[in-house]
Amino acid sequence: MTSTERHATGRPATLHDVARLAGVSIATASKALNGRKHVSATTRAEVLEAAALLAYSPNTLARGLVAGRTGMVGLLTSDLEGRLSIPILMGAEDAFGADRTSVLLCDARGDAIREGHHLRTLLSRRVDGLIVVGARPDPRPSIGRDLPVPVVYAYAPSADPDDLSLVSDNVTAGRMAIEHLTGLGRRTIAHITGDPTYGAAQDRAKGALAELAARGLPLAGDRVHFGAWTEAWGRSATRTLLAQHVAIDAVFAGSDQIARGVIDALHEEGLEVPRDVAVIGFDNWEIFATSSRPPLSSIDMNLETLGRVAAERLAAAFDGALGSGVEQIPCRLVPRESTVAA
Amino acid sequence: MTSTERHATGRPATLHDVARLAGVSIATASKALNGRKHVSATTRAEVLEAAALLAYSPNTLARGLVAGRTGMVGLLTSDLEGRLSIPILMGAEDAFGADRTSVLLCDARGDAIREGHHLRTLLSRRVDGLIVVGARPDPRPSIGRDLPVPVVYAYAPSADPDDLSLVSDNVTAGRMAIEHLTGLGRRTIAHITGDPTYGAAQDRAKGALAELAARGLPLAGDRVHFGAWTEAWGRSATRTLLAQHVAIDAVFAGSDQIARGVIDALHEEGLEVPRDVAVIGFDNWEIFATSSRPPLSSIDMNLETLGRVAAERLAAAFDGALGSGVEQIPCRLVPRESTVAA
Repeated sequence: MTSTERHATGRPATLHDVARLAGVSIATASKALNGRKHVSATTRAEVLEAAALLAYSPNTLARGLVAGRTGMVGLLTSDLEGRLSIPILMGAEDAFGADRTSVLLCDARGDAIREGHHLRTLLSRRVDGLIVVGARPDPRPSIGRDLPVPVVYAYAPSADPDDLSLVSDNVTAGRMAIEHLTGLGRRTIAHITGDPTYGAAQDRAKGALAELAARGLPLAGDRVHFGAWTEAWGRSATRTLLAQHVAIDAVFAGSDQIARGVIDALHEEGLEVPRDVAVIGFDNWEIFATSSRPPLSSIDMNLETLGRVAAERLAAAFDGALGSGVEQIPCRLVPRESTVAA
Repeated sequence: MTSTERHATGRPATLHDVARLAGVSIATASKALNGRKHVSATTRAEVLEAAALLAYSPNTLARGLVAGRTGMVGLLTSDLEGRLSIPILMGAEDAFGADRTSVLLCDARGDAIREGHHLRTLLSRRVDGLIVVGARPDPRPSIGRDLPVPVVYAYAPSADPDDLSLVSDNVTAGRMAIEHLTGLGRRTIAHITGDPTYGAAQDRAKGALAELAARGLPLAGDRVHFGAWTEAWGRSATRTLLAQHVAIDAVFAGSDQIARGVIDALHEEGLEVPRDVAVIGFDNWEIFATSSRPPLSSIDMNLETLGRVAAERLAAAFDGALGSGVEQIPCRLVPRESTVAA
């Protein structure tokens, strides 16, 4: 197939097409187009010429949507507060290009019948693909494998390993929290976290314990304090630790709400944060983290990245390549004054 | 046109058609179909017969969408956290019928250029109507009057009085807060609220002052304490009041976050809530209100109702009747233990 023939088909050129025409690898074509180093001037000129010939636009994600698609993606959520779905939607909008793809958002409210209705409606509107966002980060039933469009599960993985799921890397996040605290010289760290039936609670604890072990440090209080995702639990677990005269110089809390309860209980006992005890939360829910006294260090799940990657995987699937299994999206640590004194 | 002809056109019958066929007024037809009183048995039978002949379904809102429409409504928001847009979306979904209408949600992130992009994309997708949700409850620029579809502004009104806007009735909500506190025997009530440039802050204060005046009660502290929508402001304003030895037995806080700061500062001074001082917040943001110690009484803006009414107004506009001006949606008081001891 020549470049003219290809051009005539109307199918947008891909990076692969450009590389083939220029006679270079995809990596080299990409470097040349992005103006990176380690590409000779001659190669760069050849790649740019091929790109011009093919009318290649680097925004392939958006271009891929042009031909034979509705440019609509369904986002099926069960997130009553929008705290998960809105950042994921924004990430997906950005990746697709907000003026090329629109997101149909449906809220199933955790109800399987309502979810089925929404699914049928979205398919009847001929969406190009679906992003399914669960309300809690645990495996959820697959919406099925015989659907006419690709599906990516975000936040809550599908229970079917043949589906493609994107989840937060909670194990590494647990390690990051301990790394941060030990890096600040803390040595007696307790872990107070939420409902033990949540896979995320187990994974964060697993990462924290592994990192403590790697550093030869014990877990203060001898066990992970599982409980509920509430301020009340943060307070009561902290009070128990203090009443048992457990020496702690830091607490890794499994959520920002738990962390706020921890800080409350420490203050009540006259302990200062972070001077006496450093506290780090999880979720980086701005409204909680920034209104805390002191502002709360936390771990952010990068939900916008989750949405962006979901869009990228869907776009790849439009070309026939939908993966399967569970892909881990890295979290990031946001330090504030509850661990690092101002 | 006979009923058979009408049936043959495929256009769904309206209440108007039923009333005409039965030879009664629309109000009578509605009462008869809803089984209300003040309709004779004969009239009721005639209306029911007409409805059966026309295959009239009372879910006209959903049915009205069937003919010549895409069944898609655009929701243009600037609400980064989804706290406003998700309940409004759920209310609209319920009113339209989730299996008949889908909502295209776009997040403009407070950026006028992005909003323009989204608007053009939504119109190119031929949405039947638009709901515009602002990020703060103050007049915002109109998206224009020469649009091919009806537009309803929710939460933030349009600055153009010829547009139709639905807003929370903040004045009455302010009265409700005072009514609740005085009903519990409180007589020295302070009002600590947010940013005075917010119309909502002014309106809530206006309602509170009017209700206090109507009851011959002064405002404790002599003035409304405007500040910021934060816990920190709630704490500092409360500390100021207590340092000035202002006698207070209740605080009406302009938001749940302010209320939490108020409660914190009261606790620090050894005062008990609600025994010594009752506290009511605003927003009924569950995660803040229920995790407060004690749980926080609050005022709920009924955002789902706002979404439902927005859908109803759009549906009426599909039949050519879009109103204009600002419509006030009532709030509701949710009592918890910060005012009513358990």
